Amino acid sequence: MANPVLIEITRGDRVESFHRGAIAVVDAACKTVLALGDIETPIYPRSSLKPIQALPLVESGAADAFGLEAEELALACASHSGEPMHTERVTAWLARIGCSESDLACGAHPSRFEPVAEAMIKRGEKPTRIFNNCSGKHSGFLSVARHWDVATKGYELHNHPVQRAIAEALSEMSGLGPDMPWGVDGCAAPNFAIPVAAFAKALAKMADTASLKPERATAAKRLVNAMMAHPELVSGTGRTCAVVMRACKGRAAVKAGAEGYFAGIVPEKGLGIAIKFDDGTGRAADTAIAVILEKLGVLDANDPAAAKLLRAPVMNTVGKEVGERRSAPTLAQIKF
Amino acid sequence: MANPVLIEITRGDRVESFHRGAIAVVDAACKTVLALGDIETPIYPRSSLKPIQALPLVESGAADAFGLEAEELALACASHSGEPMHTERVTAWLARIGCSESDLACGAHPSRFEPVAEAMIKRGEKPTRIFNNCSGKHSGFLSVARHWDVATKGYELHNHPVQRAIAEALSEMSGLGPDMPWGVDGCAAPNFAIPVAAFAKALAKMADTASLKPERATAAKRLVNAMMAHPELVSGTGRTCAVVMRACKGRAAVKAGAEGYFAGIVPEKGLGIAIKFDDGTGRAADTAIAVILEKLGVLDANDPAAAKLLRAPVMNTVGKEVGERRSAPTLAQIKF
Repeated sequence: MANPVLIEITRGDRVESFHRGAIAVVDAACKTVLALGDIETPIYPRSSLKPIQALPLVESGAADAFGLEAEELALACASHSGEPMHTERVTAWLARIGCSESDLACGAHPSRFEPVAEAMIKRGEKPTRIFNNCSGKHSGFLSVARHWDVATKGYELHNHPVQRAIAEALSEMSGLGPDMPWGVDGCAAPNFAIPVAAFAKALAKMADTASLKPERATAAKRLVNAMMAHPELVSGTGRTCAVVMRACKGRAAVKAGAEGYFAGIVPEKGLGIAIKFDDGTGRAADTAIAVILEKLGVLDANDPAAAKLLRAPVMNTVGKEVGERRSAPTLAQIKF
Repeated sequence: MANPVLIEITRGDRVESFHRGAIAVVDAACKTVLALGDIETPIYPRSSLKPIQALPLVESGAADAFGLEAEELALACASHSGEPMHTERVTAWLARIGCSESDLACGAHPSRFEPVAEAMIKRGEKPTRIFNNCSGKHSGFLSVARHWDVATKGYELHNHPVQRAIAEALSEMSGLGPDMPWGVDGCAAPNFAIPVAAFAKALAKMADTASLKPERATAAKRLVNAMMAHPELVSGTGRTCAVVMRACKGRAAVKAGAEGYFAGIVPEKGLGIAIKFDDGTGRAADTAIAVILEKLGVLDANDPAAAKLLRAPVMNTVGKEVGERRSAPTLAQIKF
């Protein structure tokens, strides 16, 4: 059966396009608070996986051994825009662990922050691998490898100890077996395919750490607090993760993923949220995460930037509003 | 009932995202050759409407009165990339009809051709309205207004004689009544909502002009030939319309539209093709139009650029293929 329509885009008096997807909101005991669509087929959380991928960084003691602060932990969970606040910190972090850009296994791409991208074009500068939105995550991987004194080369491969530690953490947090299917992410690291419901459960355990072993519970809390304390380091100026976390005022951490994924962690309610749109469109996931958090009572709908996610005007090239992006009835009608 | 899944995107060993949509392939008598999904709900063809929107330009005699060549007719049907071949011709065309950039009702946006966009950033130049991908279409609208000696100001409004002529042509070609619902397009002009099947019929009449009045038949042939003769003027260097038309070698004209639309015109078979993806993703429509034309036997699947539409590799940031975009079984299995 097809997943339900959750988000719609209008133009004039009609719906022009619409987005189907699956949403699971669960608690740490895996009690399902909301289930929409197919939440059982394994699928890649993509960058929404980053908070879990950062667990070994803290849990292993690497973060403390290298004196990493909340800023670096936020960057380890980030898909950043390549603004100076990101690239300067990643550069310094790599130096601190005795590594450099050439150790990063992710490829280069331009800054996602237009003023930076344009300034670099003007100066004739090419982006380095530091500008890859995942360079913080990779710096985290490298830090663990350094701390464990294992080879840094190949740290992005599925069988490297760092990736094995991530797989083990995800397996334990989600309740899945250790042999999760996987694919190669845009940044060259493995990404594991797991059901939306199981991923929401793993996120719920980031929110409610009571059932976790002490070092993992501490790691989860530190990472979630770092994300909430530094929303722009997790994403960038004006990006959805930053807007949503600002509008949640420390009551939720969120992380977007490519291909229409979004993860949410709500500590005060002990809930995890996983959202995947069938068609892989980020615009649908952007609105859906804001809607779910608003309905959970943790997102301030009066925050001007968040309001433009909940109901996003569609503008034409002369600045006239010609339609809107909004919840479809199935999503609009849910209540917690 | 949900539309069928037509295109899928894989990563590793599994489908990560997929796209549902509707496709109609019909002849000028409205005999349906292929019907997939909901082809009866009215929806905006967006820029796929441009070949129809250009009919009054030729039919009215405006094109001949102003000495327009095939190049300008191709631009009238274009969503161009703002390369010099586009902007210089539009600038000269506007001058020829006694108009200028300030008469254009569309807004400015950057060139879609990266080298041009980057060069303009380096020179500190802001794009003008000439760079709007629809500036050729708007120049056509202005030409008709000039030719009819009616006000050019307000040419983009629904009740202006130029827009009334377009509505009449679309109504007659599609067999729909004259009061089609409409919305405002990205370029500020009206766009009419019509069923995918009815739009395919209008496109079929562009392909097989036998039932049209002589001046419209001539106009349709000239426009379709102009598009096929100048694929890059209809789109831009390396863009899907150009790639597909090059791989069809004069046997089909195609036109992309925003929000997952694609139109095709196959003169030798007298067929019109209309494709709309529910989710509005261009990547799905890009592959679908190539697949349909290949199955109709008019697209050369060995053309290297077209082959990368039929089966598009998904690359990561270090240039490794990690998945692919391809026909889903429903589309892969169709035969003509």
